[in-house]
Amino acid sequence: MSVPTDQSAATVTVLGLGPMGRALAGAFLAAGLRTTVWNRTPGRDAEPAARGAHPAATAEEAVAASDLTVVCLVNYDASDAVLRQDAVTAALKGRTVLNLSADTPGRARDTADWAARHGIRYLDGAIMTPAPTIGTPDAVFLYSGPEELYAEQRPVLAALGGTHTRLGEEIGRAAVYDIALLDIFWTAAAGYTHALAVARAEGVTARELAPFAQGIAAILPELFTEFAEDTDTGTYSGELNPITSAASTLAHIVHASEAHGIDASVVRVIEGQARRVIALGHGTDGFSRVAEVLAPR
Amino acid sequence: MSVPTDQSAATVTVLGLGPMGRALAGAFLAAGLRTTVWNRTPGRDAEPAARGAHPAATAEEAVAASDLTVVCLVNYDASDAVLRQDAVTAALKGRTVLNLSADTPGRARDTADWAARHGIRYLDGAIMTPAPTIGTPDAVFLYSGPEELYAEQRPVLAALGGTHTRLGEEIGRAAVYDIALLDIFWTAAAGYTHALAVARAEGVTARELAPFAQGIAAILPELFTEFAEDTDTGTYSGELNPITSAASTLAHIVHASEAHGIDASVVRVIEGQARRVIALGHGTDGFSRVAEVLAPR
Ligand SMILES: NC(=O)c1ccc[n+]([C@@H]2O[C@H](COP(=O)([O-])OP(=O)(O)OC[C@H]3O[C@@H](n4cnc5c(N)ncnc54)[C@H](OP(=O)(O)O)[C@@H]3O)[C@@H](O)[C@H]2O)c1
Ligand SMILES: NC(=O)c1ccc[n+]([C@@H]2O[C@H](COP(=O)([O-])OP(=O)(O)OC[C@H]3O[C@@H](n4cnc5c(N)ncnc54)[C@H](OP(=O)(O)O)[C@@H]3O)[C@@H](O)[C@H]2O)c1
Repeated sequence: MSVPTDQSAATVTVLGLGPMGRALAGAFLAAGLRTTVWNRTPGRDAEPAARGAHPAATAEEAVAASDLTVVCLVNYDASDAVLRQDAVTAALKGRTVLNLSADTPGRARDTADWAARHGIRYLDGAIMTPAPTIGTPDAVFLYSGPEELYAEQRPVLAALGGTHTRLGEEIGRAAVYDIALLDIFWTAAAGYTHALAVARAEGVTARELAPFAQGIAAILPELFTEFAEDTDTGTYSGELNPITSAASTLAHIVHASEAHGIDASVVRVIEGQARRVIALGHGTDGFSRVAEVLAPR
Repeated sequence: MSVPTDQSAATVTVLGLGPMGRALAGAFLAAGLRTTVWNRTPGRDAEPAARGAHPAATAEEAVAASDLTVVCLVNYDASDAVLRQDAVTAALKGRTVLNLSADTPGRARDTADWAARHGIRYLDGAIMTPAPTIGTPDAVFLYSGPEELYAEQRPVLAALGGTHTRLGEEIGRAAVYDIALLDIFWTAAAGYTHALAVARAEGVTARELAPFAQGIAAILPELFTEFAEDTDTGTYSGELNPITSAASTLAHIVHASEAHGIDASVVRVIEGQARRVIALGHGTDGFSRVAEVLAPR
């Protein structure tokens, strides 16, 4: 089969068929792109193949099938293990890699160096929304790397739906945002999980707590806005909610949790951050001053 | 001035004039109630007095002025220090105390015992929204204690605006919800603060991160709903996002944070929770299974 080179019938390869890789392949297929897929563990390509994807027997065969290879693996140890095999690296020469696996900014920079050494065109990226959002208006993608390369691939990436933002030339930028945003996400998820465990120990079900938990979720956007202002300006007003009050509350949470034998280490650490701010003489400031203790300017 | 006893011209006393106590007093005044105020440190009553509140010279004078005393202090150490003075306890006999200070369920139960021993009618409560919401439709109040007493005070409490929910007879119930909801709130606040510090170390301002941070806030309600379902049913599907993937991401956050000399203890603890779930053989489950490790059924 001859493959036309215009964007309207572009080709794409997806390496990695976990929940996110499958979602990406599904969106490319739905948009009518010729989509080649590969996964380390065989069998995971059955579902995308049934939807019209071309399963490749090896990673080198997979990357040779398309101009653009989208990598979506658990991290860059996995991505290195696949891409830095001689046959795969050779097959990628002159082609484009977009790595949507999550990892640190340093690993993205290191991968860009490797790509440059081997004549591979490289974009880095991150996906900020869950797998079911892919192909819908709710999906959020971040990118960093060369503007021209991004512009070239933009029509293919449009198949993934949602909003696409290129953060700049510096290849690590998408990973910086990814790390910060996942820090927010997973810490909130862990706090919620801990709260459900404490509530359960007191005989309150998650369903009973739910409407009020949603109320807390509803006040976070405003808290985020206030704390952002505080951090950028370096003024942390506690006029409406002093950190002494927060420290007291955090101690109650530790106490109520440990009274049920439930580990409260996360909240202990947070209380400690608040106590340090108070001990440093800033008890009338707000909690956001913790940012200064974590990373003094 | 003679004080009518019908609800339409009821009297109320507010003990504690921190940001929240001042907001409560302001809402009572705005609703036309005869409002008496007292605060340990003098001077903080100037603002409510200027708005028409009656400043009391002592706590016993304050509680004697009204049928209902609303307590809003930093915690129950403070509330005990004020209420359990002989003169104050004596003045409260036959009257009603509503304690809106935050603390553990145990402290609420202990305060109810004290109240019963001294012929004081007692309701416990918690405020789940920030001070500026008081008197607006956004305010959220939780209560626990005797139904009849709550029904009696309900018209006065309506002056505070927002939604009022009585959780039940058991006096510690409001504090249980308060602890769980504040666990969610402060852990999320701490995660966000940490993320801002890491982003700043990488040259990204809070303002730049803001639109994407709001995107994370926007996906939390759905996460909360999913995790609640998981916890109540005891089935923690990782089909769309396995905990092995979360553990890897948490390790990246630790690494990126510590690479800038920024303490990552909170995320280290959370990564440890995920690693334990994986080691116990549940790596294909979702993160919410951590609730089982924290508090086994
Ligand atoms: N799921 C989501 O909702 C979501 C949301 C935003 C971002 N992401 C990101 O998307 C990426 C993929 O996530 P995911 O949810 O699809 O699942 P995942 O569990 O993070 O990754 C699974 C994929 O990684 C592969 N893999 C792991 N170790 C490997 C190795 N050493 N060599 C080759 N392949 C290896 C797996 O292959 P095998 O099948 O052979 O094990 C599978 O294809 C991650 O970086 C994740 O953070 C996911
Ligand atoms: N601010 C909010 O947005 C918010 C939201 C929800 C719930 N709450 C809860 O509302 C309660 C009050 O909070 P807040 O924000 O007004 O400020 P706060 O800083 O928590 O409490 C300040 C009040 O506590 C008093 N106090 C502290 N130690 C005392 C003691 N040993 N004896 C007597 N009084 C003592 C202070 O008196 P002095 O002036 O003499 O120090 C002041 O009146 C807390 O339980 C808080 O968790 C607050």
